[in-house]
Amino acid sequence: MQNFEFYNPTRIIFGKGTTASLAEHVPVDARVLILYGGASAEKNGTLAEVRAALQGRTVREFGGIAPNPTYETLMRAVAAIRADKLDFLLAVGGGSVIDGTKFIAAAVDYEGDPWEILTSSGANVTRAVPFGTVLTLPATGSEMNSFSVITRAQTREKLAFGSPYVFPRFSVLDPTRTCSLPLRQVANGVVDSFVHVIEQYLTYPAGGMAQDRFAEGLLLSLIEIGPRLVAQTDSYDLRANFMWIATLALNGLIGAGVPQDWATHVIGHELTARYDIDHARTLAIVLPSMLRVRREAKRDKLLQYAQRVWNLHAGSEDERIDAAIAKTEAFFESLGIPTRLSAYTIGADEIDALVTQLEAHGMTALGEDQAVTLDISHRVLEAAL
Amino acid sequence: MQNFEFYNPTRIIFGKGTTASLAEHVPVDARVLILYGGASAEKNGTLAEVRAALQGRTVREFGGIAPNPTYETLMRAVAAIRADKLDFLLAVGGGSVIDGTKFIAAAVDYEGDPWEILTSSGANVTRAVPFGTVLTLPATGSEMNSFSVITRAQTREKLAFGSPYVFPRFSVLDPTRTCSLPLRQVANGVVDSFVHVIEQYLTYPAGGMAQDRFAEGLLLSLIEIGPRLVAQTDSYDLRANFMWIATLALNGLIGAGVPQDWATHVIGHELTARYDIDHARTLAIVLPSMLRVRREAKRDKLLQYAQRVWNLHAGSEDERIDAAIAKTEAFFESLGIPTRLSAYTIGADEIDALVTQLEAHGMTALGEDQAVTLDISHRVLEAAL
Repeated sequence: MQNFEFYNPTRIIFGKGTTASLAEHVPVDARVLILYGGASAEKNGTLAEVRAALQGRTVREFGGIAPNPTYETLMRAVAAIRADKLDFLLAVGGGSVIDGTKFIAAAVDYEGDPWEILTSSGANVTRAVPFGTVLTLPATGSEMNSFSVITRAQTREKLAFGSPYVFPRFSVLDPTRTCSLPLRQVANGVVDSFVHVIEQYLTYPAGGMAQDRFAEGLLLSLIEIGPRLVAQTDSYDLRANFMWIATLALNGLIGAGVPQDWATHVIGHELTARYDIDHARTLAIVLPSMLRVRREAKRDKLLQYAQRVWNLHAGSEDERIDAAIAKTEAFFESLGIPTRLSAYTIGADEIDALVTQLEAHGMTALGEDQAVTLDISHRVLEAAL
Repeated sequence: MQNFEFYNPTRIIFGKGTTASLAEHVPVDARVLILYGGASAEKNGTLAEVRAALQGRTVREFGGIAPNPTYETLMRAVAAIRADKLDFLLAVGGGSVIDGTKFIAAAVDYEGDPWEILTSSGANVTRAVPFGTVLTLPATGSEMNSFSVITRAQTREKLAFGSPYVFPRFSVLDPTRTCSLPLRQVANGVVDSFVHVIEQYLTYPAGGMAQDRFAEGLLLSLIEIGPRLVAQTDSYDLRANFMWIATLALNGLIGAGVPQDWATHVIGHELTARYDIDHARTLAIVLPSMLRVRREAKRDKLLQYAQRVWNLHAGSEDERIDAAIAKTEAFFESLGIPTRLSAYTIGADEIDALVTQLEAHGMTALGEDQAVTLDISHRVLEAAL
């Protein structure tokens, strides 16, 4: 096992009817900004519940934080917070609203150009406005980690940052708040969580026994509930499990002490930046090809994945690896998520431009072993046509 | 899944050579009390390493916190801290030293008789002196939770308390610090961790998919490494996995949102209080009998345990349950830990007195369903003769 530090102070308040508990968790004398995305938070009643819980407090609102939140929009929130001297943020939504809120929290008191928060990957952050979250879309894990991905619309850049100052103080996870989610978002969330686990698991053996077992447990659970979630949207039990699994998939736990990959995410980010494909859908395109192209480097873990996750015991090693990758692909497709670039009418002539984007963003040595060069990324994209 | 809150702000610093990092994690201007147990911390070099890391700070020491730490001893530490105006505690040792330090931390500024901390189960605690830990004996999970068990020597009472104020600020987990542990303590630690997981898992189905998978993952790992740990004491990899698994077994995670039992622990505490049997060894005596006596209430989870943990698929339901319990027993025995009261020459004539102790401590309705009455406890002890 590798040496590691694990620290995660976010308080999770989980279950039916827990939104009302905001009254306890938001400081009484706080000047609060509620941040949200589109009309759904209003329509499904979550915002009304949040407002009711905070009645009597000083509360402002900032809506319109769209998927793949942009620096430009977020800076308008920063200006509003400074102008109104607000001192507590409450993100109501999914990963985009929470990621956006993290950036805003770090930017409000940042000395200098806040874009540096992203170009320094968060290293320059020394404080942040405290914030909590009310999660309505399980997928990114942002509700219990200190990471954030922000897009600059102007330059089509999608950059990540992390800082111990941007852990949410608390996150309210009420599964009933997810029951009105469109199926497309549920399916996306399942794939996103699945690939989060894979990025921390499918590398090379590092002797992290609990980490491997936990990762496998999350994958097995997602495989079990994925198709049922998409078919049966009103099951509290399924929604509750999905919500907690998606949080555990990226809260630092399963990745502590083991190598991590993230090449699939980085290449996926370029697809989103260029074609505006949903984040999760880019992962479903890139991951199977990545596993095929990188099968030698990942051989031992692919065999473990085949055995423990897909229960594949028959055939040669290579047959089991092929079968495990095919099953991964079939799982994504069973959720209605395509696994090929062609599904988005992206052809071979686009690949050079995507690789040029990777190069421009310095993404020239990706993966757990930094062996995913631009050349390898090119091959991965070709294999995904 | 049940509603739950999960909160665990302890920072884990894990790996080879991490003791030196104490210098970063103990506040520079703190007046520190190092607390430890017997001679082993001195002999194996851990104390020397701790002292070196804190060189230049104001540091006092308090040794002699024995297994099953007593109120009487701990109150002497409280007096020393008050007299010397110390403001940061550093527990160096295993669960006993850490549990003792938690009580001390809560008692220093407690207004009233500190014994009330235990009789109120911690509800009366409103603050605590901050503390960190350097773990030398994986077993109890105390290094990453807010619970503590204390004994009153005078009355032979063993009582537990918990409070969010007694989470360690940080815990240093350096597996190399465990390489000189006596085999008896390693074996005890494996059993202790194993039963911690069982208490949070083997109850009734509550639809906590990730919780179940995580619990099963920890049990599978302990079964895999237990015998090797006892045979091969110098493997860093085994020690590291054991250390992290023991922490994960009782840091609140696997028990969040699911029912918990703890009847085995409560009955075990009476065995320790009366006969001074090592804590883990009492669990190995009580658990198999508890599972036999409670097999109907635990039927569904026993079947799941048989299948997923022991890979038992053949035979009738009852045969699989019998086999799973027998395998659990055999696992403990394989570590050199007896599973019968007779191994400690405790006979049937002692059972009434033990049940009277349980009654005196108000332990009349134990277990996930409060169905373990004094009568059931009597039967469990009889079945363990």
